[in-house]
This record gives sequence, structure tokens and C-alpha cells, in this order.
Amino acid sequence: MGIVIQKFGGTSLSTPQQRERVCQAIQRERHKGNSVVVVVSAMGRADEPYATDTLINLLKRDNLNPSRRELDMLMSCGEVISGVVLTNKLQSHGEQAVFLNGLQAGIKTNSNHGDARIVAIDTRLIKKYLAEDYVVVVAGFQGISEEGEITTLGRGGSDVTAAALGVALGADVIDIYTDVEGIMTADPRIVKNARLLDAVTYNEICQLAREGAKVIHPRAVEIAMESNIPLRVRSTFSDSTGTLVGNYGEFNGESVQIRRDRLITGITQMPDITQIRVDIKGEAGLPLRVFKAMALAEISVDFITVTREVVIFTVLKEVADRAREILENLGLSVVTEPDCAKVAIVGAAITGIPGVMAKVVEALTLNGIEILQSGDSYTNIWCLVKRDQMEQAVKALHDKFDLGNQEGGEF
Amino acid sequence: MGIVIQKFGGTSLSTPQQRERVCQAIQRERHKGNSVVVVVSAMGRADEPYATDTLINLLKRDNLNPSRRELDMLMSCGEVISGVVLTNKLQSHGEQAVFLNGLQAGIKTNSNHGDARIVAIDTRLIKKYLAEDYVVVVAGFQGISEEGEITTLGRGGSDVTAAALGVALGADVIDIYTDVEGIMTADPRIVKNARLLDAVTYNEICQLAREGAKVIHPRAVEIAMESNIPLRVRSTFSDSTGTLVGNYGEFNGESVQIRRDRLITGITQMPDITQIRVDIKGEAGLPLRVFKAMALAEISVDFITVTREVVIFTVLKEVADRAREILENLGLSVVTEPDCAKVAIVGAAITGIPGVMAKVVEALTLNGIEILQSGDSYTNIWCLVKRDQMEQAVKALHDKFDLGNQEGGEF
Repeated sequence: MGIVIQKFGGTSLSTPQQRERVCQAIQRERHKGNSVVVVVSAMGRADEPYATDTLINLLKRDNLNPSRRELDMLMSCGEVISGVVLTNKLQSHGEQAVFLNGLQAGIKTNSNHGDARIVAIDTRLIKKYLAEDYVVVVAGFQGISEEGEITTLGRGGSDVTAAALGVALGADVIDIYTDVEGIMTADPRIVKNARLLDAVTYNEICQLAREGAKVIHPRAVEIAMESNIPLRVRSTFSDSTGTLVGNYGEFNGESVQIRRDRLITGITQMPDITQIRVDIKGEAGLPLRVFKAMALAEISVDFITVTREVVIFTVLKEVADRAREILENLGLSVVTEPDCAKVAIVGAAITGIPGVMAKVVEALTLNGIEILQSGDSYTNIWCLVKRDQMEQAVKALHDKFDLGNQEGGEF
Repeated sequence: MGIVIQKFGGTSLSTPQQRERVCQAIQRERHKGNSVVVVVSAMGRADEPYATDTLINLLKRDNLNPSRRELDMLMSCGEVISGVVLTNKLQSHGEQAVFLNGLQAGIKTNSNHGDARIVAIDTRLIKKYLAEDYVVVVAGFQGISEEGEITTLGRGGSDVTAAALGVALGADVIDIYTDVEGIMTADPRIVKNARLLDAVTYNEICQLAREGAKVIHPRAVEIAMESNIPLRVRSTFSDSTGTLVGNYGEFNGESVQIRRDRLITGITQMPDITQIRVDIKGEAGLPLRVFKAMALAEISVDFITVTREVVIFTVLKEVADRAREILENLGLSVVTEPDCAKVAIVGAAITGIPGVMAKVVEALTLNGIEILQSGDSYTNIWCLVKRDQMEQAVKALHDKFDLGNQEGGEF
């Protein structure tokens, strides 16, 4: 019997009923004879009192630029609260359980507050408790820097904690529990016949996550992949084993074959994007000035197209006004296209397959959806569309490639 | 210039407006040239999300007997949240401020979770920040055990943190900020002409606190007293310096004389008490069995009267039913008197002053208030009355001794 990491997100921990399901999931692994390390996120959705966003807003009422050191100390409370609450629930069921905060769990990070990287894990205390047959509940998302300061890992950080603990402890599997059934061919709230994928490769899930599927943090996948430890994305609220994430081949005797020949994994969407066009009037130095200005302001830019006449890129909606202002202060002529969304078809080796791009364009234009910008990489083809046509675009692409019926899509 | 400790309670930290007043109080000390160490309690009253009681109730929904180790980890979040929120507010005013949790502040305790004692304070990090001219905000109520576990100090623990830091840092004064003006001759919500006391001795305030005046934790006073560091109990929301607590004599050049000849300090009340009478029918061994049974059940008993016929004592309302059940299970005949309250007159050396007890009895009986039980010690005289006559009893005693007009009361 081995070690299983079980990571539970905030939406699985909000109510006593949900925590009851979490306890059952933990006890199910215990009854198989496995040692269990549980990683928790902060409780609840953004509007609940112990959610990370609510804690941040506590500070923003007084100060729009809170210090990153103190912000991390505050945010770390979210996972401490949910971890204690879950540990308490386990104890009420007679389980021998102990809660460890980031410091106690030995999660050592660099000192980049708000977006720290795990640099090492001192697993001694966890191993001591596992040897004494405890369920060890660990606060996700947080660690401790060399200077003894509390740090947090940034969005999705609890997934990273789970993956890093899986590697450090040589776990058999890292289970990422969430409120969806697993990885689907598209968001089931948009596409009714979206299909659950039994298994995907590390690369496929990374692509999906990067393109907007919010099931797991890509850095967590990379960490697990490097040590070839399988992940499962599964639902806290069902008995299904969800989607296995691993390399091609078998998993742990359970013989799930990950298909090597699948071309399209699924369709993703990403709303709340603003497109920015800067007229460069043939001045060769301007694109560099544009991107330097954005970098200086710590604004992430994406979907970059540079021609001799124009620089086009996208930014997240919430920083769009600031980006525009900065560029106008440089004396540039700027046009913004607010309320855009990105839709993408993601697949292991999609580019260069004859006819795929044609099908994408056909699906969208036949449905009256304007393509504002598009591009591709080795593993995806994406299109920028207006936000109010996003759902329609996802459905059109899912239908066109027949993903609801056919593994790997139809060509 | 020296070091000033400023402790702010939860009711001073709940809203941005209140925190604004707190910042002003801190900046006032800074402008005098003092180094400031701020100690905070958890934010808000019992029904707010980050208050200690709310955090405890999170666990009790799942488990009526949460583990004391995990409970401490949870409760410690309350002071971290309020400390970060206040530090952030200070930073928004351009103050150089830093927040330290119990571990970082070097608050070392024994490992008695939920009611730990401070055993030492490693002040190095605090001193380093003070030397760099920071306002140092410290989480009250929490520490770290030798085993590296997070502990809490029990009710009123932030006062204890403030006092212990005052001693460890050799502070000039320990300011306990609260939502009342200072120490009054009686609760001003009950007695309209209750008077603010300029100065009281350590012993007087300890007595008042033990008898129900909720201004400061008695243990905090004892700690300050041992090192003869003055305390001030004062309001966050006024500029008054409140009540100075110290030994007889002068304070720090500000020449406040603490009166040596005051006989009565004030009147206190304590509601929510149940009186229990056990018939012992002349069986000599019964009183011991009664008190052993209460001790075993960890029920605090008070106001004990033992005669050959009866054992009388009081317990807090919330444990009265359990106490009664335990005694009845021993086959004893039990009569309870619920809804009682204790009122007391507190003074440095009250007992033995001729006529005081007579005046107490006269004041109550003339107002139709039944004395259910009474007693005295070297520093107080107390009476048990029905809860619905408590306010009337406090007023009658305050009037009888003319405390609203006359320092030390009239005899």
C-alpha cells in the first residue's frame, strides 16, 4: 500500500454536508490501506468570509496597494481555517487526523511574496505522522521562506502544493478533487453533450489549463510530470474516478490506456479579454517601446501580432484601462476592443493536420461569428471573438469536430 | 523617548472608521517620539466572521469536542487577520509598519492549548524592527510552544500579551485601549452618574476585574505589577488619557497621585449565575463528594457556604443544568435558584470598616431587593440578588456610598 495525495478545492469544503463527502473520499482511500495526505484550499467561493478574495478585499478597503508580506500572512489564514475545519470533521468521525500549516509541513519557498515557488519540502514531520497512521491535512497555497516569512504560491497554489508533496513523498497518485466530473471535451455549462475524458496526457491537460480550462494549475501538472506521478481530476460529489492524467500507457494496474492517436482533446474558452491595437506608423522602434512599457507596468500581454503598420495584443479586462493610459502617455495612437473572448481547440499535435484550420473558420463563419484575431501553436488553434458570441463559438466548434460522440474528433 | 505598548481590542478594529481612530492613537504616540508596539485582538464582536467565537463555532458545527491543538491553530487566525488589517491601514497612512505573528514576535508559551502561559519572550526581532523605526504590530492572544505548536492564551489573552511585552521590552507604559473611557465607579450603562477614576492601584483594578468589570484581564495586571510598569485603561474613541493603573505615587513625570486613602473603588456586577443548594442531612462526608464531583466535571464553583444542613454555591448559568444532573445522579436532594446576579462593592481594605456592611444591607432592603446570599473578603463585599434586580442593586449601592460625587465614597 502506498501514499495517496488528495487535494480538495474551496468549493468542496464550504458546508458541513460537503465536508461530509470529503471525509467519505478520504476514508475510502484509508479503507484501501493507503496512507493519505490531504491538501486543502481556502473555503468557499469569492464572496464567503474565509475565501482568499474576501480576505484580500479586507485590506483593499483601507489600502489599494497592501504590502505583499502582510498580504501573504493574511491570505495564509484561509487555508489554515479550512484545514482545521476539515481535520476537526475527520476527528469527529473517529479518524486520527492532524493539521499542519505550511511551516509545519516543511514547505520551503523562495521569498517572492504572492507568487512564491516551492524550492524544497522537509517531509520529516509529515512522515512521522504518517508512520503513526495519521491522516495528515496540509494547508495548500502557503509556505515559508528562508527568512522565516509566510509566503503564498499564487492562484492555483494548492494544486502545486499537492503535486510537490506527491513528488516529495513518492506518492502513487495525486487526486485533485473538484466540483466537476473530470476533464471534459468542453465546458458542460456551455455544451450539453460535452463528454468526460477517461484519460489525458500531462501535455494535453497543460494545454487545456493554459487555454482556460480551470481544472488544475499547469505548474502542478509540470511538477507531477517530471516525476511521472499520475494525477486524477475527479469530483468530490461522485464516485467516478474522473480523468486520469499521465503518460501514455498503463496506470498502476488499473489498465487505463491513454490514447496516443487522439488529435483533439477539447474546446476551451477564456472570457474577459480586451484587444489593444497600436498604430506604429512604420516607426521600427515602437513595438519594443510598447512591450517594454507593458513589462514595466507588470501587465501580461498575449496573442501578439506585429506587422509594419500595427501592434496587436490582448490583455485581461481588469488592466485594459491602465494599459491604454500608459500607451497614450507615450504619445501612441491606441484603439481598444473591449469585451472579447478567446476560444481554442486543443490537441496534442493539431497544427499541420490538413483541413483543421479550414474547419474552424467554417464553423465560426457559418454561425455568424466574427473572428477578430486568430493564431495557432503546435498544440492549439485559437480565435478571438466578441464575448457575447463566446458560448456560440464553443458549441459550433464542439459540434463541427463531433467531440460529443467521437474520441479524438472527426476530420 | 521610550517604548509604549498599545493594545487594541476587537471592538476598536471592526470597521475602517474605527481603524482610522486606532491609527490616530498610534500616530499620536509616534509624534511624541516614542517607539510603539501595538498588540491586537481578533476583530469584532462575537457574531462577526473573524471573531474568536465565530471561528470556534465553525468547528462545533461538525464536532462538539474539537481537538485543542487544531482549535488553537484556527483561533490564532483571528489575531493574524486583525493585525494584518491594521498594519495595512498604517501603511496606507505612510507609516513604516510590520506585522508579527506569535511565533515571529517570539512569544514562547507552555503547551497548554487554549489556556497557555507565556514562559519567555524572545524580543530580538521586535527590537530589530524598533531600531529601524517601524511600528511593530503583534498578534495578541497567541504564542508558540517548545514543540513548535501554535498556542492561545485563553480569554483576555491579548491583554496578557501586551503586559508581557511591556515587561520584556521595559516599556514606559502599557496602554489598554477599549470602548469605554476608563475605569468607572460603576457600569455607566447602569448608573448615570458613574464617575471616571483618574487612577487606581494594581490591586484595585484586579479586584474590579475579578468581580466582573470587563476592562482588563487580571493576569495582565499581575504581570505589569511585578515589574511596576504602569498601565492605562483608555478609550480608542476619545482623547482622554483614561485611568492610570500603578502603584501609589507619581507616574512618569505626569504627576498623577494615586490616592492611598480611598476605601471604595467602585461597584461591579456579574449576571448569569445560578445558585445551587444541596441538602446534606447531617452526613459529614457529603460536602466533599459534592465538590469532588464538580471538580471532576471541570465546573467552577463560587460563593461557597457550608453549614451542617446545607451546601450552597453558585455556578455559571450555562453549566447549571449539567451540575444539577451530576448531583442528582449522586442521589442528592438539589434545589437550584436560576437567574441570579452578583453585585459587589470593591475597595482596597473594605472589610472591618465599621458600618459598611450595615449600609450595604440598608441600601438593598430599602429598595426591596432580596439578598439571597452574601459574603466578604479583605477587598470586597458581595451580595447575590435576583438577575432582574441587578441594575437596581448597583444603582442603590452607588447612591448609598455617594460614589458619583465623592472620591472614595461616603461613610
